[in-house]
Amino acid sequence: MAGTLHILGVGPGDPELVTLRAARILGAAPVFAGFAKRGRPGHAFGIAAPHLNPAARELRFEYPYTTDLPVEDPRYPDAMAAFYDTSAATVAAELCEGRDVALLCEGDPFLYGSAMYLFDRLRGAHRVEVTPGITAMSGCWSRAGAPMVHGDDLLSVLPATLPAAALAEALGRCDAAVVMKLGRNLPKLRAVLDELGLTNRAIYAERGCMAGERILKLAERDNAPAPYFALVLIPGRRGVR
Amino acid sequence: MAGTLHILGVGPGDPELVTLRAARILGAAPVFAGFAKRGRPGHAFGIAAPHLNPAARELRFEYPYTTDLPVEDPRYPDAMAAFYDTSAATVAAELCEGRDVALLCEGDPFLYGSAMYLFDRLRGAHRVEVTPGITAMSGCWSRAGAPMVHGDDLLSVLPATLPAAALAEALGRCDAAVVMKLGRNLPKLRAVLDELGLTNRAIYAERGCMAGERILKLAERDNAPAPYFALVLIPGRRGVR
Repeated sequence: MAGTLHILGVGPGDPELVTLRAARILGAAPVFAGFAKRGRPGHAFGIAAPHLNPAARELRFEYPYTTDLPVEDPRYPDAMAAFYDTSAATVAAELCEGRDVALLCEGDPFLYGSAMYLFDRLRGAHRVEVTPGITAMSGCWSRAGAPMVHGDDLLSVLPATLPAAALAEALGRCDAAVVMKLGRNLPKLRAVLDELGLTNRAIYAERGCMAGERILKLAERDNAPAPYFALVLIPGRRGVR
Repeated sequence: MAGTLHILGVGPGDPELVTLRAARILGAAPVFAGFAKRGRPGHAFGIAAPHLNPAARELRFEYPYTTDLPVEDPRYPDAMAAFYDTSAATVAAELCEGRDVALLCEGDPFLYGSAMYLFDRLRGAHRVEVTPGITAMSGCWSRAGAPMVHGDDLLSVLPATLPAAALAEALGRCDAAVVMKLGRNLPKLRAVLDELGLTNRAIYAERGCMAGERILKLAERDNAPAPYFALVLIPGRRGVR
């Protein structure tokens, strides 16, 4: 009997924000896997730790590049495709030997998650099930006490890695927004928000739902580089009293 | 000691997609509350049922109007504001007598959730904590096997209740989209998607993660009215192989 690949969203950071379904699968799977930056523990491993089958074996896939090589570099797509090919082959070998594999994903797997690249590679030949997770943005707006979208509001979710002009066009048209992947893009984003008159509505959230959480008005945040997973929330206008 | 209002996202429908935190709070709270259409059981109550403290008391808030009165009707805003005022007062009375209240919300509370109106009314004078939930859209794209946003993709989340021109403008500019609150708006949305050449990428999802789930290509769905909570997914373009 071939094994099943369980692609599991483990939520934004607090191990108690894992679903009952993800906790059940983590407690039973003989193998768990996840992506991490080289030399870093990896958030998803930390979130899942309290829920793991104590006898489970770890597969750890370290990205060849993260922020150390720009996405536009011609080496980037080939290196990443080869990395996902190798990772998929490692998972496939476990599945073929009849072992289920739990692939850990911060937040929700299908919202900017690396697990999508293994899903694409493995779904044809293997049994693959996806368990949604609490997104980082839901975790952050809950902790911030910031109701986001009401009535007919349009919510835009976009990465701060976009060029300033594209950020300005999208942010100028939506009612509410979440800007992900802040990293070194905070000064660029702030300039766009200033220009649009949105800075006073914006909330900065770093390590939401984790130890070291920091949530404050963007206007009170300096321009020092943010963690890659930090985000900015712009709550929507109000529809109903 | 005053009680705490716990605003709880209970996820998209499957009781196993409740978080460990929500399940813990539901198992302890002496009072639970939720919104429902008149004469209907209410999805959130059904999702929470297996997790409730068996001794807990139910507060049920029935909307004065749902689809039976258009939002544009001048009676609508006053009636809804009065309804939320009364609901908030009922919850506040429990909190003042020292009882915690768990307010149940389908999906995530701060994404188009009615709980936002009680949050606004009660946060000043009472202790209020928000627990995020798995959104309906995450539940649906996971069940559909549809990776949604990659790399620099922009995701738009918008209600099908918007006028056709506003839908067309937003959908023409994003990489990926989720159109919520389908109800009677399916023919209007389909015409917009046809015009934009997006119909072949679109997925229709009804009762995602629940009994009676129906997920199919939009092109294969007729124009009969959809449930209010049905949605359409338009997965994004691909960034990396």
